[in-house]
Amino acid sequence: MSGRQLHLNVNLLHSGVYPSAWRLPESRPDAFIDIDHFVRVARIAERGKLDAIFLADTPAINDRIDYRPFNALEPTVVLAAVAAATSHVGLVATASTTYNEPYNLARRFASLDLVSRGRAGWNVVTTADAAAGRNFGFAGASEHGARYARAREFTDLVHALWDSWEDDAFVGDKSSGRFVDTAKVHAIDHRGAHYTVAGPLTVPRSPQGRPVTFQAGGSEDGRELAAATADAVFSLAQTIEDGAAYARDLRTRAVRYGRPPDALVILPGLATVIGSTEAEAQRRQDELWDLVPVEYSLARLAGTLRIDPARLDLDKPLPDPLPLPPDANHTMFLGTVALARRDKLTVRRLLRALGGGVGHRIVVGTPEAIADDIEAWFRAGAADGFNLMPDVLPDGLETFVDAVVPILQRRGLFRQDYAGATLRDHLGLARPANRYAATGRSLSA
Amino acid sequence: MSGRQLHLNVNLLHSGVYPSAWRLPESRPDAFIDIDHFVRVARIAERGKLDAIFLADTPAINDRIDYRPFNALEPTVVLAAVAAATSHVGLVATASTTYNEPYNLARRFASLDLVSRGRAGWNVVTTADAAAGRNFGFAGASEHGARYARAREFTDLVHALWDSWEDDAFVGDKSSGRFVDTAKVHAIDHRGAHYTVAGPLTVPRSPQGRPVTFQAGGSEDGRELAAATADAVFSLAQTIEDGAAYARDLRTRAVRYGRPPDALVILPGLATVIGSTEAEAQRRQDELWDLVPVEYSLARLAGTLRIDPARLDLDKPLPDPLPLPPDANHTMFLGTVALARRDKLTVRRLLRALGGGVGHRIVVGTPEAIADDIEAWFRAGAADGFNLMPDVLPDGLETFVDAVVPILQRRGLFRQDYAGATLRDHLGLARPANRYAATGRSLSA
Repeated sequence: MSGRQLHLNVNLLHSGVYPSAWRLPESRPDAFIDIDHFVRVARIAERGKLDAIFLADTPAINDRIDYRPFNALEPTVVLAAVAAATSHVGLVATASTTYNEPYNLARRFASLDLVSRGRAGWNVVTTADAAAGRNFGFAGASEHGARYARAREFTDLVHALWDSWEDDAFVGDKSSGRFVDTAKVHAIDHRGAHYTVAGPLTVPRSPQGRPVTFQAGGSEDGRELAAATADAVFSLAQTIEDGAAYARDLRTRAVRYGRPPDALVILPGLATVIGSTEAEAQRRQDELWDLVPVEYSLARLAGTLRIDPARLDLDKPLPDPLPLPPDANHTMFLGTVALARRDKLTVRRLLRALGGGVGHRIVVGTPEAIADDIEAWFRAGAADGFNLMPDVLPDGLETFVDAVVPILQRRGLFRQDYAGATLRDHLGLARPANRYAATGRSLSA
Repeated sequence: MSGRQLHLNVNLLHSGVYPSAWRLPESRPDAFIDIDHFVRVARIAERGKLDAIFLADTPAINDRIDYRPFNALEPTVVLAAVAAATSHVGLVATASTTYNEPYNLARRFASLDLVSRGRAGWNVVTTADAAAGRNFGFAGASEHGARYARAREFTDLVHALWDSWEDDAFVGDKSSGRFVDTAKVHAIDHRGAHYTVAGPLTVPRSPQGRPVTFQAGGSEDGRELAAATADAVFSLAQTIEDGAAYARDLRTRAVRYGRPPDALVILPGLATVIGSTEAEAQRRQDELWDLVPVEYSLARLAGTLRIDPARLDLDKPLPDPLPLPPDANHTMFLGTVALARRDKLTVRRLLRALGGGVGHRIVVGTPEAIADDIEAWFRAGAADGFNLMPDVLPDGLETFVDAVVPILQRRGLFRQDYAGATLRDHLGLARPANRYAATGRSLSA
């Protein structure tokens, strides 16, 4: 195996990406709060040699929970438990820069990196939901640009805290009694527009140097944040052309920040519905779709578009014009509208194409067809890999691992086994140099 | 086995309570950042049928890390990993009300309670350290009374969030498609002096109803907070009389808050140095003490007293008078001064009695002598059990479990096995009723 390699991450969406996944005979409705479910999925991912599992998150109830499961549990707590039950698969948790303290967040992820022996990743989000704001003393969500200005400072600050211990600061020499070389532990003394943080972190530098930073930069601000700070990006693209254009744009921006164009691993979302024949896959999609109540899908679409559901007519196209609302999740909004306009879909057909309101691309087919699709995107430079969203969990992932992964391996596109121990190793990312090494103010200065 | 039963918690102080514990031949210096160490200690505690393990915490470096290990890792991350590797032992994590958002904290502990299937506890602290303040945008620590006013509102608010889902709100009925009965999920709409939080929590009600609330109320404010909100208390007492007086005081206060006097489980700190003979135990203590650099002990004592180390003369008593500084940890300050005055100790002898600056009571002796001490405190009403601080970990705990626990079991004071599955079961605490059951505003209202 040689040459450029695919990266595969699985989005651990409780019962699966379809809102109806929990209603299938093989699903357990309480999977969303059952740690055994998360461990089971992680072990399947590890058996398939996947790069990582990923948990999305919002610190609020922002979906129709009367109809479907949601991200209930705090992701770092879940992934710490999963770390103890796995050995290689990466563990990526979402955490908001708008509703966390940088010191606490840096510490929690550095701790997860130590507990998992170098498998932690942080997915940086700014959290557009008004419901989240109301859980943290605000009347609603803060404005898009303000969220991203704060996010940039927050992310830089967290990276500095992750460098606050040099690699060899911990000594632990019994005979001399020297425990830590405090000349190699550094205050960061950050004083910025939004945060003032002294440091150092309480956590020695983690196995990966820094946990891997993920971002899902869709908007202009989001792309800039990703280009400046991220190691890997969860993107949204419905066509190879859109995917390739996004990748070119992001790499150009990264170069402007003095980074090599391949510094970023770009992973478009990919929902999968797999059958042993094309007809079986279509039947599976029909079954999943028929179990989604239309009022749920409509409410979710209206939420994505930030409009009144009454403005949506099932048998007509989306309202036109449809300006981007300031408080929308840009990625989801633009992806949804682009899909509807391109294929001139009625709302009813759009809902089905969205799989009940997801927004990411859905491929329905045989393992061979899905491998072909993945290979085409990969070879066209539209993706370095994918953020997989199986229709149903764990079954949809098990099918992917048992039927699609071997095809990708035979084609020389995907690893036969893990070559390294850390998530950075899996993603082919270098261990970052420590900004304070051989310089800087120390704790003892 | 019947009658009133002892409760035993172990304070998982990385390498042990002695600052020199990491330097013994059997210790691993990197235990403080090695998850396998935490798992090993937890499994020994579980083999001994102990109620819980406990992690102290400060979100800052506030000790002389050039000399000794410290609480590096974030406790909920550590305990989630430990949860996956154990089945019965309780898991108590410290988290600060001054430097966390209530919504995030409530969510993290509710998640830990689900992940551990009902074994989570939250030790409420207000964090007196100035170094912590500087990691969160403050010039130093906030004032004692202000911290406690905030802590009371914070704790009440967290308890309300833990009630925001009624026990039977989750439905998960595949045939009807009803996932959650949103009439049983409640906004809390808290608007207080310090916090405004809408709720509900994203987490269904946890196995314990609410994670167990611990407190270490030493000061007047701390005792009031514990009496009003805590299920269990970590206390500091050097004599049976002091322990009994503290217990009486706290139970009297609890009654004033309309609670039964036995609503609180009171657990004084108890450091143990165990030998198969009295002489062997003394030798072990000498060995541990001789490895503590005197400049470390002096610096730590000066830190507890919030005075310049130059004011401490090794061969004289503590300075007199020594007023309580506003930014001190009251429990540690008062315990230390009381010990020095009562036994008229020079600073040198005080340091040794403190075991290098701990402040909690140290018992040195045979398993039989330690069991006698525990029984005497328990029967005198000075303790419902203890927060054990073994000299060295895991060895000191292993000796306790193998040699002291069987004596306590033979005397009918301690369980032969766990009778229940949750930490509340172990502690004999009732599952709290949900404040919203059969009433209140729901999410769908």
